[in-house]
Amino acid sequence: MSHVRDLQIDTGCPDTRALVEHVTSKWGVLVLLALDHRTLRWSELKREIAGVSEKMLIQTLQTLEADRLVRRDALPVVPPHVEYSLTDDGHRAVELLAPLVQWAQHQVRS
Amino acid sequence: MSHVRDLQIDTGCPDTRALVEHVTSKWGVLVLLALDHRTLRWSELKREIAGVSEKMLIQTLQTLEADRLVRRDALPVVPPHVEYSLTDDGHRAVELLAPLVQWAQHQVRS
Repeated sequence: MSHVRDLQIDTGCPDTRALVEHVTSKWGVLVLLALDHRTLRWSELKREIAGVSEKMLIQTLQTLEADRLVRRDALPVVPPHVEYSLTDDGHRAVELLAPLVQWAQHQVRS
Repeated sequence: MSHVRDLQIDTGCPDTRALVEHVTSKWGVLVLLALDHRTLRWSELKREIAGVSEKMLIQTLQTLEADRLVRRDALPVVPPHVEYSLTDDGHRAVELLAPLVQWAQHQVRS
């Protein structure tokens, strides 16, 4: 019970809420899942995530990078080559998110 | 890999997305957690969830009821007595949500 009480209080914390929103947002989920098993370049990520606009993808990546879930590596080459991958925290987020998304998908089909 | 692929496709499903949004929404999380261990009357629930407006609480409960996560029992007494509790699916949602919220709260503090 006190466990749940603690959780209740914390979901009221704006920072906690913001983070939950980032990882459960439409594009946030897709970016995290796309990067879970692979490092991807910007163009690959854009192709991977059907329907995302450049603006939304940039914004989503910046948000997840600020949350320390996504790592951005700009390789010092010409032309510029930027790679995105998940941090350990990012992988952990996917571990927690995936069952929730799977549950939701099962739920809407039943 | 195909596991993740499947998930990607499904997060694009509007119904799945809507359900994920309902259970991870600010008030959605709080209502689900509040009802996880107890049946509560409307007034108790309102008191339990600090800061929620009547309008938002009504809307959140209706949404979660339509998702079959919350059960609304109107007892045939005068004055009206309405109780809210979680369905089995609602309890399952909390099981999946709680670790995510806990992770987020730990994350913003570290």
